[in-house]
Amino acid sequence: MGSVPISGTVYLVGAGPGAPDLLTLRAARLLGEAEIVFHDALVPEEILLLASRAEKVAVGKRSGRHSTAQRFINKRLLDAARRYRVVVRLKGGDPMLFGRAHEEISFLMNKGIQVEVVPGVTAALAASAELQVSLTRRGAARSVAFVTPRVGAGERASSWVQALLAADTAAIYMGAGEAAQIAAALIAAGKPGATPVAIVENASLSDAKMVCGTLEQLPALAQAMSGGPALILLGEVFAAAQEAGVGDPIARIASQAA
Amino acid sequence: MGSVPISGTVYLVGAGPGAPDLLTLRAARLLGEAEIVFHDALVPEEILLLASRAEKVAVGKRSGRHSTAQRFINKRLLDAARRYRVVVRLKGGDPMLFGRAHEEISFLMNKGIQVEVVPGVTAALAASAELQVSLTRRGAARSVAFVTPRVGAGERASSWVQALLAADTAAIYMGAGEAAQIAAALIAAGKPGATPVAIVENASLSDAKMVCGTLEQLPALAQAMSGGPALILLGEVFAAAQEAGVGDPIARIASQAA
Repeated sequence: MGSVPISGTVYLVGAGPGAPDLLTLRAARLLGEAEIVFHDALVPEEILLLASRAEKVAVGKRSGRHSTAQRFINKRLLDAARRYRVVVRLKGGDPMLFGRAHEEISFLMNKGIQVEVVPGVTAALAASAELQVSLTRRGAARSVAFVTPRVGAGERASSWVQALLAADTAAIYMGAGEAAQIAAALIAAGKPGATPVAIVENASLSDAKMVCGTLEQLPALAQAMSGGPALILLGEVFAAAQEAGVGDPIARIASQAA
Repeated sequence: MGSVPISGTVYLVGAGPGAPDLLTLRAARLLGEAEIVFHDALVPEEILLLASRAEKVAVGKRSGRHSTAQRFINKRLLDAARRYRVVVRLKGGDPMLFGRAHEEISFLMNKGIQVEVVPGVTAALAASAELQVSLTRRGAARSVAFVTPRVGAGERASSWVQALLAADTAAIYMGAGEAAQIAAALIAAGKPGATPVAIVENASLSDAKMVCGTLEQLPALAQAMSGGPALILLGEVFAAAQEAGVGDPIARIASQAA
């Protein structure tokens, strides 16, 4: 096999939903040890400050925008692993849910680089905590689907719809910008327009915003958001949020829409 | 409204998957401040040690066993909130996924007790990190179902099966003891017996154990586990774990079973 070049470890680290104290202890420690941190655009500055001695490189994609090509990120990670001992790839939420971790892990492993994954708190769980509504409920909600929608036609375009229809509760990541199409697709597929929904924007942050209503109202609800990362939650369990009066804006929106 | 009795806050805190350093910073801080901690049976001792000044009360359920009735737990939480400032209800993983949080939150809120939820790293994400296989994959796996099975007949008995069938990737919580029935139910519903599966036991702990194979082999794979908390993972993405040779025991099991 010849001589093995010495290289560092690339840690794919979940930064959690946004609040700095929802980082794991391990993530915080690794940030402190890191010599270089490649981070998504959405990771808050306050979290990056924990990487006090690291060079910080923003490589992430903002919702929709393709800021840095994955191939280029892979190459940067490889170069860093050959130069540094502790390389952190910091991803919003958890690395293994909608984080393109597969592409980075398989590329690095094929190059013989040691990879470790540090799981994090994913946005849907922070949103559920913010709403104080459990995603599951004994005897009533035993399955939860986490989905990113692919709106419009195309290969397997409707598989996310089927996954949402079949689960008792659903969390839709990166969908708030396409709320109208999502609502239309779900209603066309047979989901009742009266299904309770909630949208949580900036879950866990001080400027978190929550609204709730019904699937039919989803497009109007989404318009009340401010463009931050938002999660759409769907299912009978969220009737509880409505009853608790979460997000007074909704009532306003609903009456405006009427 | 009359005078409001002074009471403490009940924090429903996710303890994460087991490794003490996969607690969030907030969870660790609250444990340090807690005057009393009600914890699930599965929360490791090392995590409880962080609650250095708290009375610790084990109330959780071990898989299958109904150790403490929910009604009794609710009552204990209420009493504690009336007596202490910081009451922690510590739950394995995340409180809002299969944690019966709904019952505790609604009971306490109805009694006027302040409740806060601190999200945690859920077991499926720790299992995915352990396997180094992402639950999602761009263009191939866009939906993940988190499910607890209800094996056998009964009301809505098959809804978990439908949720699993419709999602690209699935994580089955609390199912390893019923692996044979789960495999049979899924195959009967049309899931191919060749679908890649993995089981991860004690994810994130030093005695973590991983095996992988196919849905058909699931009953044999489950028998290789040691009875710790285990997650069954299912979907094409886990073919990668097989190729990487995760869990050599499988090959052995598969050949024994053949």
